[in-house]
Amino acid sequence: MKNIITLPRPAYIISSATVAGEEEFSGPLGESFDFHSVDEDTFGCDTWEKSESEMQRRALTMALSKAGLGNDRIDCIFAGDLINQCSASNYGLLSFDLPFLGIYGACSTAAEGLLLASSVCSSGLCGYAAAVTSSHNASAERQFRFPLEYGAQRCPTCQWTVTGSGAFIVSAEKADSCPAVTDILIGRAVDAGISDANNMGAAMAPAAADTLIRYFEDGGEKPDMVLTGDLGYEGSSILCDIMREKGHDISGIHADCGLMIFDREGQDKHAGGSGCGCSAVVLGSVIQSNLRAKALKDVVFVGTGALMSPMSIQQGQNIPGIGHLVRIKAEV
Amino acid sequence: MKNIITLPRPAYIISSATVAGEEEFSGPLGESFDFHSVDEDTFGCDTWEKSESEMQRRALTMALSKAGLGNDRIDCIFAGDLINQCSASNYGLLSFDLPFLGIYGACSTAAEGLLLASSVCSSGLCGYAAAVTSSHNASAERQFRFPLEYGAQRCPTCQWTVTGSGAFIVSAEKADSCPAVTDILIGRAVDAGISDANNMGAAMAPAAADTLIRYFEDGGEKPDMVLTGDLGYEGSSILCDIMREKGHDISGIHADCGLMIFDREGQDKHAGGSGCGCSAVVLGSVIQSNLRAKALKDVVFVGTGALMSPMSIQQGQNIPGIGHLVRIKAEV
Repeated sequence: MKNIITLPRPAYIISSATVAGEEEFSGPLGESFDFHSVDEDTFGCDTWEKSESEMQRRALTMALSKAGLGNDRIDCIFAGDLINQCSASNYGLLSFDLPFLGIYGACSTAAEGLLLASSVCSSGLCGYAAAVTSSHNASAERQFRFPLEYGAQRCPTCQWTVTGSGAFIVSAEKADSCPAVTDILIGRAVDAGISDANNMGAAMAPAAADTLIRYFEDGGEKPDMVLTGDLGYEGSSILCDIMREKGHDISGIHADCGLMIFDREGQDKHAGGSGCGCSAVVLGSVIQSNLRAKALKDVVFVGTGALMSPMSIQQGQNIPGIGHLVRIKAEV
Repeated sequence: MKNIITLPRPAYIISSATVAGEEEFSGPLGESFDFHSVDEDTFGCDTWEKSESEMQRRALTMALSKAGLGNDRIDCIFAGDLINQCSASNYGLLSFDLPFLGIYGACSTAAEGLLLASSVCSSGLCGYAAAVTSSHNASAERQFRFPLEYGAQRCPTCQWTVTGSGAFIVSAEKADSCPAVTDILIGRAVDAGISDANNMGAAMAPAAADTLIRYFEDGGEKPDMVLTGDLGYEGSSILCDIMREKGHDISGIHADCGLMIFDREGQDKHAGGSGCGCSAVVLGSVIQSNLRAKALKDVVFVGTGALMSPMSIQQGQNIPGIGHLVRIKAEV
């Protein structure tokens, strides 16, 4: 079993674009998103599921435009989301009429898509590939918990599914000031015995730790920043504890997209943000711009996901977590 | 946009293994499956969803054993299924403790997995990769239609979700008598305006045609066999009509896994078999053994999928289809 997979040549992230909801726009990173809702997160659509699809369509449209590419240049889109049968992606990206591979990694989907897009570009199978993902708070509440109208109560370890979509265009052709993916590590599903669907952070943290330990013990160097997807307060603290215990203290360099996206004091989001869109919009906005500006030089991004379904929870199964790793450097 | 992607070197299918339900075992290909249910398709589990997971676990276990490989040799599993959040795969393959990338291509998942496993092996990113998929009639009925206990009536264009799982082990190392994937073509989602959830064949056929036309018009040679995943009677006839109209008559070389798996006269399965497991068990059994025996020399396999969800149908959306192509040759 391989741990670190070094790409034969770097895969450049030549553009990224982000679409966010109103709550996300009100948060600390709000100004860095390319587009945000002004119509209560409907994005002009009559169902939440269609709104989520529309976010993906807009994100990819903007990413293509920023890259100066017509649709006809993209050889493959990797896309996925949290909705049953990944339908937000299936419908949202239909109008591009492009080769399409659906992926499912729960909230780790942004990392999975970037990992696969980088792989096919680096190996020369594709010239340009796109990675797109999304989540929408209202469609996720309907899918996994209760429709918003039910007004269910939330406990302190609950995370808030981010309304957002991020799209990334990748190519092996070097482009000025574009950060590059240099190596990847594919996560393993880890069942740490958590069965509480209101504590995803605890379910995902052991998987993120498994990935990072495999990475460091296979010779991966410590980066400037270890950026996890959506562990939130609970999961981030568990991750740092496990890593310290295993001799790889990351507490000084760890950041989590789920912690960055909302203001803990001012926005009542409990344990932080989550969802495929959470890491996609943070990575696609402030992290990309900092890498481009060389304010950040070397990021190990671990997208984290909880691989359960509402039915698996009802049937009493535990919640396996997974963490996929993508190393992104500002200069290669 | 690329059409045909020629792999830098062939990716050998070094083993495959299939698990099937009782109805599938009673069909014309029954004897060719490696394992079949003898306990009413429960596979010893107390829910249909767990039964489906168990089929995947057994299929991959057998494929590894046939390949003579320990788990520790596999660098990545690509797996997916029809169940919400791909949970049959997530839980079914958990115990292997291997790098895992979830995919979703509806019933085209066997082709998508094989295409990706071949790509990462061919390009040297992985030494061995696995592609696993499944469907289970009872879990699919609960997911997409009505639980079996409701005894819903079926119309003539309905297909029967196959209870089955197939696993494939791929490597770029040449192995004796193993067929090889030489080139691939990634499908585009095609919305042909079909909104009848009881006529998946009609929704998928235009996508299979789009893929095949892109393939032949980009220089792909006619193979001995064009094998589609699960178009069934309705879809197969539509596909052959479209292809004839476009100047690529395939009627003499076309076969469909959904037509092969059940006996139309003796088994009351309406328009034929469907589901991720349908093409996986046909490709993984009789097609693989015929390729190994050189009775078949050159197969263009187009896995077909319908990218809807129950909710997208309830919301009045059409059913987009998709078809991913994998060319498999007996000798390379």
